[in-house]
Formats: sequence, structure tokens, C-alpha cells
Amino acid sequence: MSSQISEATTNRLSVYLRCLNELDAAGVRAVSSKTLAEQFDLNAPQIRKDLAHFGELGVRGVGYYVKDLKRQLRHILGLDRHLKVAIMGAGNLGLALADYPGFRQEGFGIAALFDNLRDKVGQQSRAGVPIYDIKELRKIARRDQIVIAVIAVPLSSAQAVVDKVVAAGIKAILNFSPGALRAPDDVKLKNVDLTVSLESLSFYLAREASGDDT
Amino acid sequence: MSSQISEATTNRLSVYLRCLNELDAAGVRAVSSKTLAEQFDLNAPQIRKDLAHFGELGVRGVGYYVKDLKRQLRHILGLDRHLKVAIMGAGNLGLALADYPGFRQEGFGIAALFDNLRDKVGQQSRAGVPIYDIKELRKIARRDQIVIAVIAVPLSSAQAVVDKVVAAGIKAILNFSPGALRAPDDVKLKNVDLTVSLESLSFYLAREASGDDT
Repeated sequence: MSSQISEATTNRLSVYLRCLNELDAAGVRAVSSKTLAEQFDLNAPQIRKDLAHFGELGVRGVGYYVKDLKRQLRHILGLDRHLKVAIMGAGNLGLALADYPGFRQEGFGIAALFDNLRDKVGQQSRAGVPIYDIKELRKIARRDQIVIAVIAVPLSSAQAVVDKVVAAGIKAILNFSPGALRAPDDVKLKNVDLTVSLESLSFYLAREASGDDT
Repeated sequence: MSSQISEATTNRLSVYLRCLNELDAAGVRAVSSKTLAEQFDLNAPQIRKDLAHFGELGVRGVGYYVKDLKRQLRHILGLDRHLKVAIMGAGNLGLALADYPGFRQEGFGIAALFDNLRDKVGQQSRAGVPIYDIKELRKIARRDQIVIAVIAVPLSSAQAVVDKVVAAGIKAILNFSPGALRAPDDVKLKNVDLTVSLESLSFYLAREASGDDT
């Protein structure tokens, strides 16, 4: 039951899947770890090591069949199960996430938005995701088989919303709120910090600036 | 001028900085790489290796002074330069990013939103970021010394907006649009794929489900 696969590995599997999607769309049938690494700025031994966790996915002398590896990665990542997702908070961030094209493309079903504001409840996102009263979370989570909740409410109400999500029996939470939230041990809580991506650009600009001086 | 520091390292430096912020807020004065690793589920040799790139930041027998290391990391990441950011697109995602608290906390200045819709231009985000006509990008980028642009427009217009950003002389771009965009070699383009975080939850749920069967 306990997973030996780190979150960093899982993140890399997602990246490999993205690359394979691109190759597949371009009509490429097979690819070696070396070519994959060169084309997408990855590390070939790392690719082989990551994929070796899941048995013999490659074919000697060929590398990987793109469609096969895609299907296997989707299975490993649980993407063939069409998991249902609820977005907590129908503000700008919640509405943006509800209609984020990548979620649908990868087979997630954004089933519902939840909010507590009367003029939001009963409305829907531009793509048609219905907004429900957060009081109905437990009932709708059960009815729609929602297994992942995305926290997109302000920090001040984030912990209270997480507690409601946990009480509704949802075991996986993706948190976009900037604070440190608590959940029981049997609930997987993953924090997304958008600042990290901005900081790597800042680092790049700082290096460029100091390079100019030398 | 060319950086030997990988993007993965930069991302980890950002994570270390988050941890140090928490320790500092809790009144902790010094911390060893071992304690840092244990407390935040990191890897101690990796921490030492990452920080060693930047000279002797630790003190023998003490570890790292929290405030000192924080200041040094902020300097390394270029966060003491108060970089100005423009958000391209004043839809739900753009407005959410303009008011995202983490950006401000880490010293980024969200100077402007840009859109081409007449009823958006002249308005502002809830936190007061002004929305300008995208035609004014070059002028305002120069006036406000904007050095980073965040792409938060639909895929169909993303490349055209990137081209305008490049033409305005902005050298660092953070892209939230799901497609593959092109920029010249002297422009750093970083893609954020929000699906990756959702997929690691999906993987966790898939493992739990298969664990239940054994």
C-alpha cells in the first residue's frame, strides 16, 4: 500500500506524458530515451530509471512505442479513471481553474464549483460547470463521485473549507491558497505555490544582470 | 554569463526560502540541513549541495542562521530587486494572478494588467492593479520598468500576445496557456502546467485503490 514512488518522480511522469502527447500529435511512432531527453531537455538515465519502476516499458533497439507508453503512463497516473474534481470557491481563481483546458484534456472531470455567496450559487462557469452552495458539498460529492477537491478560496476561509472537504469524505486536496493547511493523515494534501515559477524567472534575470557586469 | 544552475535547483532554492520564512516567523534563529530536511520533508545532502553552489552559506557546528540564509537566498533569487510584472489578459486567470498574495509577499510588484476588451480597459483588479489596453504595452512596460510578463490569455491568442511582449523588450515570460509557445533565444519562456499537480493526486488515488485490492 505504501508508495515507494516519490512526488518528484510522479511529477516527472506527468512531464513525460506531455512530451509523448506532443510526439503522438506529430505522428512519431517510437522514441528512445536519448531522443526524448534531447528533444525536451530531459535526462535520459533519469527517464529510464523512472520508467523502470513500472516494469519493462521499453523495447530493445526501438526505445518506447509512443502510443503504448502514453497509454501505460496514463494508467500509472490513474488518468484512465476519469476522476471527478470539485473546485472550492467560485472567485476568479476558482472560475479560471474550472475552465482550465489542461484538466479536461488529461481526463479530469470538473464536476462542480462550490461557493457560499448567494449571487454565485445557481450560476455556472463559462464552460458550464455548475456552482453549488457549499452546504450541499457532502450530498453532491457523493452523487457525482467527486474524489479530488481544489481549494481556491481566500486564506482566511481556507482551513474551514478543507475541514468541510474532509468531512465530505474527499481524500485528495489540491491547495492554491498560500497558507499552511492541515488535513488528517489519510487525506493527501498537495500545495501549489505559483510564486516558485516566478522566482525561477527572477533568478534568470538576476544572473543575466550580473553577467552584464563581468 | 551562462548559468550552471539548473531550473530544478532554482525551484528547490524557492522551496528552501519558503521553509526559512516559516522558521523565521516561528522565531527560530539557526537550523541545520538535517533539521531543515526532517521538518520539511527535504533531502539534507541535496540542500548542502544546492547551497554550496553559492559559497559558504553555513556555519560549522551551527548550520545556517535563518535570517542570514533567507537574505542570501532572496539575493540569489533576485528577489531583493523588486521586479515589476505585467499580467497579459484580464480574464478570470489574469485577475486571480494579479491579486495572488504570494507574488506580493515575495517582493514582486504586479504593475499592470493588459487586455484588448474595451469594457475591461480602464478598470482595475480587486487589489487595485490597473487594466491597460494591450496597445499601450510598450509604453507602459518602459515607464513602469516591467521585466516579467505573465501570459493568461486563451490559447488562440497566446502566441500573438507573446510576440507583443517580446517586441516590448520584456525578456522573461511565465506562460499559463496550455500550448507550446515560441520566443527568441534571448527571452526566457517558462511554462506552468497546472495539470501536473492534479496528476500527482490522481497517482496517489490510483495507488490507494490498487492497495485496497491486495
